Amino acid sequence: MALSRSADSVESVLAWIDARRAEAIADLQRFCRQPSVAAQQWGMEEMAAMVQEAMRGLGTEPQLVTTRGFPVVVGRFDGASERRLAIYNHYDVQPPEPLDAWTTPPFDAAIRDGKLYARGVADNKGNLVARLWAVRAWRETQGTLPCGVTFLVEGEEEIGSPHLGEFAAEHQDLIQADACLWEAGYREPGGALALYAGVKGILYVELRARGVAYDLHSSNAPLAPSAAWRLVEALKTLRDPAGRVLIPHFYDAVLPATERERALMAQFPKDAAALRRLWQVEHLLGPEDDPAALTERLLFEPTCNICGIWGGYSGPGSKTVLPATAAAKLDFRLVPDQDPLTILAQLRGYLAAQGFGDVEVVELEDSERPAQSAVDTPLMNALVRSARRVYRMEPLVLPRIAGTGPMEQLCQRYGLPAVGGAGVGHASSRNHAPDENIVVDDFILGIKHVAALLAEFASTL
Amino acid sequence: MALSRSADSVESVLAWIDARRAEAIADLQRFCRQPSVAAQQWGMEEMAAMVQEAMRGLGTEPQLVTTRGFPVVVGRFDGASERRLAIYNHYDVQPPEPLDAWTTPPFDAAIRDGKLYARGVADNKGNLVARLWAVRAWRETQGTLPCGVTFLVEGEEEIGSPHLGEFAAEHQDLIQADACLWEAGYREPGGALALYAGVKGILYVELRARGVAYDLHSSNAPLAPSAAWRLVEALKTLRDPAGRVLIPHFYDAVLPATERERALMAQFPKDAAALRRLWQVEHLLGPEDDPAALTERLLFEPTCNICGIWGGYSGPGSKTVLPATAAAKLDFRLVPDQDPLTILAQLRGYLAAQGFGDVEVVELEDSERPAQSAVDTPLMNALVRSARRVYRMEPLVLPRIAGTGPMEQLCQRYGLPAVGGAGVGHASSRNHAPDENIVVDDFILGIKHVAALLAEFASTL
Repeated sequence: MALSRSADSVESVLAWIDARRAEAIADLQRFCRQPSVAAQQWGMEEMAAMVQEAMRGLGTEPQLVTTRGFPVVVGRFDGASERRLAIYNHYDVQPPEPLDAWTTPPFDAAIRDGKLYARGVADNKGNLVARLWAVRAWRETQGTLPCGVTFLVEGEEEIGSPHLGEFAAEHQDLIQADACLWEAGYREPGGALALYAGVKGILYVELRARGVAYDLHSSNAPLAPSAAWRLVEALKTLRDPAGRVLIPHFYDAVLPATERERALMAQFPKDAAALRRLWQVEHLLGPEDDPAALTERLLFEPTCNICGIWGGYSGPGSKTVLPATAAAKLDFRLVPDQDPLTILAQLRGYLAAQGFGDVEVVELEDSERPAQSAVDTPLMNALVRSARRVYRMEPLVLPRIAGTGPMEQLCQRYGLPAVGGAGVGHASSRNHAPDENIVVDDFILGIKHVAALLAEFASTL
Repeated sequence: MALSRSADSVESVLAWIDARRAEAIADLQRFCRQPSVAAQQWGMEEMAAMVQEAMRGLGTEPQLVTTRGFPVVVGRFDGASERRLAIYNHYDVQPPEPLDAWTTPPFDAAIRDGKLYARGVADNKGNLVARLWAVRAWRETQGTLPCGVTFLVEGEEEIGSPHLGEFAAEHQDLIQADACLWEAGYREPGGALALYAGVKGILYVELRARGVAYDLHSSNAPLAPSAAWRLVEALKTLRDPAGRVLIPHFYDAVLPATERERALMAQFPKDAAALRRLWQVEHLLGPEDDPAALTERLLFEPTCNICGIWGGYSGPGSKTVLPATAAAKLDFRLVPDQDPLTILAQLRGYLAAQGFGDVEVVELEDSERPAQSAVDTPLMNALVRSARRVYRMEPLVLPRIAGTGPMEQLCQRYGLPAVGGAGVGHASSRNHAPDENIVVDDFILGIKHVAALLAEFASTL
């Protein structure tokens, strides 16, 4: 066991991090002040260069791996043990709009009341910079890392990682590792980190209904087919009011939770009353009187959600029109082992069978497959132990989160176990929204957590 | 009988109209180039002034009768006989949006291939200007009119005539006449005018669904109620795919067609194949293989139409959002003797009974009651005879049209028989839609028709 041997070195690494606190925060501000909005092609080259330069400062020559989109920055560090940890992050951020909803400008990286506000600080530059500083802490205090580390930092996560799968397929030599630390993490309202071993998949489509060739005066309604009614009727066949998807075989591939997964989720009960207050609703979908079942529903239930619907006149007052077209954007959140392309085919087949073959189904972005690692991998165990040490509290372990990420195409497809949830965000970090923020103390803890993790992971079989 | 005496004078009136053709068209363009969008409070004062100035040019001092909304322009002309014809028109038009769907800008009044394109040219500035020119033709050639004429030109028809009822109640002295010529008319594809003695009523509402307090990330879909799904579910309870309204007692007050009405409608068969081609649809609602039944459905069937629906994200690409609100604008076209306020109460009661009491039903504009005169009034007979003379074809006589107008509050309530269908539009005039247009020749015929009508009506008991 290397634990006792490394204990002293970990202590000195953590002490070094506390001593360099101000410098680390300033470095994070520098990263946040460089815009890098993939959707707007804004600052991407400068940001990739900044990541490369930071890696060079840590003593490695990073590779800038070109893709058909923005490049992936790969930085490999050797360690004292043969074990190697891949670390997945992204250097792009969401668009900052609406700008006037920010208290301070999104790329000012202002600090107020112990929080740092910036677009991308939680999602996920805070995590990227914290992980780079964890490596720095080991190198500056110990001269080497306890294990090998490979940073995989893509630039297209916020636009759906359209080229990450190709990158992974073509560069298995670079990706090869024993496990992968996923991009981000958020402290729960009670302060705990929620570690997770999987993500949901997604299928994103647009349903387009067409009626008459052009908008008609609505007095034609007795005779003219309506695109708006057609869309409503097609949509109504897809889901019942309780949220159950009505497409035949939709649930066929869904894996139920195991007893172990259920036991873990029972540690993470969802407070229905708190959610009702937060969302200002009278009822939730699902078993409101069973907090653990509510958690299971959130994480294990696939969904069909209307992201947007439109057709005809939506301006002020009245206009008497019979719309020629109407459409809706839908996202299906999928769970293991649902396959997005299978679901897409089922959706099309079902609509056609229900007599809605005229309603066009267009896949709007590359779908993501769900991904699921075991909940007791060496990486998860190492993250739990290092979290106890740094946060002085027990982290939660969950089989997965309700959100989506490219975990299948980067990790699962190649047998690489992945774990997420180690990160510098918190429950009100406002990802993708104005006033995105992290607590500065959480950033320092995040550096320490990953620093401690490297030692734990090195000594874990 | 004054017919033979007036025959020569009618001939000279009609000849004068042909001689002043270019001037009349230019005058119509001038009216169309003045925007007058009541819903957007755009150009209304200027338009009312233009109508007044035109009446002054015909030798009367019009009254601008104030209402709580836009004023009514009333112009009274005395005639050689005691008989008096009220002429109802409106100086407001529908909003021109979507602007980029117009071939030429909506207020350019461009003429292409014998058609004049402008917002409001068919609905109904073309009719208003034609009727003013019919009066002018009599005055300039004969010095007087065959009968008295009272123009009643309101400015709020396109927003539901919310103050016309008050105007009518308070100014019976101005309205008093023997009959009322209604606002507009449209030539059928075969060229015939379809004269009518009634209109449908309307109830216009907005259904507003609310879910969570603010837009959520769509990963919350397993637990969070969706306003968009709620709206779709509520809408689906209102109407079946064949167009039948599912609200209990909705059809209770509907009067069936009489034998006389059916016989008239049999002269006006709807060509299902032509409509399918025009609208580019595979099927119509209703009995496609029974042309007369199709006509009866168009005129006698009340409807529930979605004018607009919206909620969540409708921009380019994908956004994973669970919308907090969603809404739809609906118009119910009503037939004698359905009462809009009764239907509104039925709608609210039904939604509540179906468990949708949380979906707010907001009445967006003052509703209109349906109206129906007898089909054989002196005005109808005079219109038929003058149409034969000017168009050299037999007009159709219909009990009513599928459209709506304030005929009940202006005429029926006070025993004033009304007839519509004399007008300058045609079957593809695209009322309320981009590229609204009339055939310029129809505008000239429309002037002649009303000019001939004045002589016919003067001599009709």
